[in-house]
Amino acid sequence: MVRRSPTSLWMTRMTRLSPDTLAAVLRQADTALERSQQILFELLRIPSISAQPAHAGDCAAAADWWRDQLTGLGFRTDIRPTAGHPVVVGHYDGPAGYTGPHVLFYGHYDVQPVDPLDLWTHPPFEPQLVDGPRGKRIVARGAVDDKGQTVMFLEALRAWHTATGTIPARITVLIEGEEEVGSVNLEPFLKAHQQDLAADLALISDTGMWDVDTPAITTRLRGMCYAQVTLKAANKDLHSGIFGGSALNPINALTKILGDLQDENGRIQLPGFYDSVLPVTNAQRAQWDSLGFDESAFLRSIGLSTPVGERGYSGLERLWARPTADINGIWGGYTGAGAKTVIASEASAKVSFRLVANQDPDAVFAQFQHFVTDRLPPGAVAAFANFSSAPGIEVNVDSPWVRAATTVLGEEYGKPAVLIGCGGSIPVVTSLRTVLGIDSLLMGFGLDDDQVHSPNEKFELRCFHHGIRSHVRLLAKFAGG
Amino acid sequence: MVRRSPTSLWMTRMTRLSPDTLAAVLRQADTALERSQQILFELLRIPSISAQPAHAGDCAAAADWWRDQLTGLGFRTDIRPTAGHPVVVGHYDGPAGYTGPHVLFYGHYDVQPVDPLDLWTHPPFEPQLVDGPRGKRIVARGAVDDKGQTVMFLEALRAWHTATGTIPARITVLIEGEEEVGSVNLEPFLKAHQQDLAADLALISDTGMWDVDTPAITTRLRGMCYAQVTLKAANKDLHSGIFGGSALNPINALTKILGDLQDENGRIQLPGFYDSVLPVTNAQRAQWDSLGFDESAFLRSIGLSTPVGERGYSGLERLWARPTADINGIWGGYTGAGAKTVIASEASAKVSFRLVANQDPDAVFAQFQHFVTDRLPPGAVAAFANFSSAPGIEVNVDSPWVRAATTVLGEEYGKPAVLIGCGGSIPVVTSLRTVLGIDSLLMGFGLDDDQVHSPNEKFELRCFHHGIRSHVRLLAKFAGG
Repeated sequence: MVRRSPTSLWMTRMTRLSPDTLAAVLRQADTALERSQQILFELLRIPSISAQPAHAGDCAAAADWWRDQLTGLGFRTDIRPTAGHPVVVGHYDGPAGYTGPHVLFYGHYDVQPVDPLDLWTHPPFEPQLVDGPRGKRIVARGAVDDKGQTVMFLEALRAWHTATGTIPARITVLIEGEEEVGSVNLEPFLKAHQQDLAADLALISDTGMWDVDTPAITTRLRGMCYAQVTLKAANKDLHSGIFGGSALNPINALTKILGDLQDENGRIQLPGFYDSVLPVTNAQRAQWDSLGFDESAFLRSIGLSTPVGERGYSGLERLWARPTADINGIWGGYTGAGAKTVIASEASAKVSFRLVANQDPDAVFAQFQHFVTDRLPPGAVAAFANFSSAPGIEVNVDSPWVRAATTVLGEEYGKPAVLIGCGGSIPVVTSLRTVLGIDSLLMGFGLDDDQVHSPNEKFELRCFHHGIRSHVRLLAKFAGG
Repeated sequence: MVRRSPTSLWMTRMTRLSPDTLAAVLRQADTALERSQQILFELLRIPSISAQPAHAGDCAAAADWWRDQLTGLGFRTDIRPTAGHPVVVGHYDGPAGYTGPHVLFYGHYDVQPVDPLDLWTHPPFEPQLVDGPRGKRIVARGAVDDKGQTVMFLEALRAWHTATGTIPARITVLIEGEEEVGSVNLEPFLKAHQQDLAADLALISDTGMWDVDTPAITTRLRGMCYAQVTLKAANKDLHSGIFGGSALNPINALTKILGDLQDENGRIQLPGFYDSVLPVTNAQRAQWDSLGFDESAFLRSIGLSTPVGERGYSGLERLWARPTADINGIWGGYTGAGAKTVIASEASAKVSFRLVANQDPDAVFAQFQHFVTDRLPPGAVAAFANFSSAPGIEVNVDSPWVRAATTVLGEEYGKPAVLIGCGGSIPVVTSLRTVLGIDSLLMGFGLDDDQVHSPNEKFELRCFHHGIRSHVRLLAKFAGG
């Protein structure tokens, strides 16, 4: 269904491009840096807030901007409508005889809302280049998420185009406008354009580095099973004086059941929950251990300091490679001011499980149902809902593309790239795999302190510059350089 | 501070009144029954709903009605203002040389609201005498709670007054108008009129019988410790993908702590919680066992059937003589529709303990605080509030007054009265003990199916009749009959 390139063939032919060509393109990228930054500023000035209907025209303007940029580089580009904001799709066939992978670059032109506006040091859609402890930084809504990171790729294409007159790979660009509102129309779009979007891998720059000096490839994303449970007991709310000591209290029952979700070692107690969880390799663990992650400092930023969670695992392993069970909401009975002596008729909770690769979200939902129903006291009935079911993702780190990206990042930064995880989900990665059958290569240049989704969002200019250069190098690698 | 009658002296002089006198008064009560019912109907026609400001004038009218009735029987009566609805106080000195107890009769003239009005078969303030399975019944708001039960006492006074020209005991009558809205002004009133309200015991008819043929004296009322706890963790709501597996989730922590409130046998786990709980006597247990309480039927009325609570105790013992721990409300995190992947910064619960006599509510609150703080995971902070602190009540069943009431009820019904409990609290009983230093004798004639606080509230005419006669007998007993 989905075309795949002859990967092994590509690996054996990676000899076409001369080192001199790459060096020339990198010089072009360096020379054009200020121009690249100005081009990014053009895009940052468009207030393409997808969540706010008043900005629908701005979203359309951002899509137009992308169409024009890609067309100017020789892409066959069009803007395609969705039920929400439009999607930009551009195709570039690459040089004749190209045998490398067909790359689908994914990004988004929409940004988060900007409130509270009074916390911004500059107007969010008037981008500024300001001094920071790590040199110049670009401050604006969308600076890093995702306008800055997508324009890095655009500028890498432009450097190739300017220096060599062409772009050395077969590329499809897909820029959507609804990532910040859940990409609700993206999966239908992928299904409707499955043939047109066929590629060998997806390339995404919407993630982060380990730190400003250490490049990273995100190879793990946790999945999700999000359940809701309601315990029902008596057919009406009861007077706790008349019935207390005889009638079942569903809130007591719910706390007893959910209080057993984890044991004293933080181990999740759903039967079979860990059966399909794969251990992290020793090599991966050693790499993470070498990063010197200071979990207490990580927690101090939110007013905590002592880690919780599964004993026997490092902080990074818990955050990236182990599943969780968090009660995201709970409610029942009287929640107003003061006292009301009621025994409620029902109590509810929302419970989500962050999952890792190889765990089946639907199986986890069934395990949760069994966990609860096995513990129901007499007279209680449980009702369930399943609000989210997404598998965890683990990219095959032995793929030629991960190896290629690791190599180019190592060359660019003079130190090896680390393979990191992301505790959350990136739904498009799941959709790309599910609908188009392709893996994603997540090569991002953001930093933890970039204030993503917050006031004074920024992107370090050096990250932007290294990002352009890394994409230049990766394109060379795909082209056999 | 509070005058006490020489009880033992009274017991040795209980020989003054002839049986013929009592028989004559009882005949008078029988003869006047229809008139007594008409008098009750007068009061029932006054819509004295204390909760609704529009009925303030009706509350005042009900107070006036009581003043007039008591004055007509020779009481020195006045209406005293409070911050809310007024209180009626009447004094009757009793016969010269009276050596029996000074009785403070407490009742209330206010009633509950009547909605939903469309469920009433008759207008709630147009009292009706209708046929029921147990004979005639009086249907109106307040029929039993508490107008019918207070008028029983009034009509017993009237029977004595009519038949003998006097009332044989020293009596203070206290009728308030805010029982249905929490008696908020009663305790200050008692404090302000402590000397004027001094008595040896309080007599209250606002409780029930065991069943229509079995009279009862309520000798146990459970008390209350009502606590609120809030667990605070991070200084803001967190993304469960970024922090899940490392950051403390206060809802998980709260369910784990509160899930341990009871063990598998329903035993409450606060350290020291049961230390001061007194066991029920074998005689009391045998009496309760003999009642044949069908707990499953009791629970079926609310859609349940299997009792919960402390193992090893009968249903009545659990409801009347054992403390409880019920979570009355719980809340935290996201409680709207669908999914939100948040780790909340805090979670709260309202937890109340129904207490039995001899348990100190403030000590229980401290035990609860310790129970929670001893289990706090690192990084969590607990904040507490105490909304209610009322001790349980256990009337000394060896008192001369309980013996007197037991005797008269046995004579009236031809079968022994049972000593029952009430799972809830009657705050005035606590106030009478605390402020005036007197015990309450709770001799009531309501039935479980009287629809108290609900549409079609009723009072069986035979209960009303027996109630008047029982009060006639009790007055004779106080007078030495």
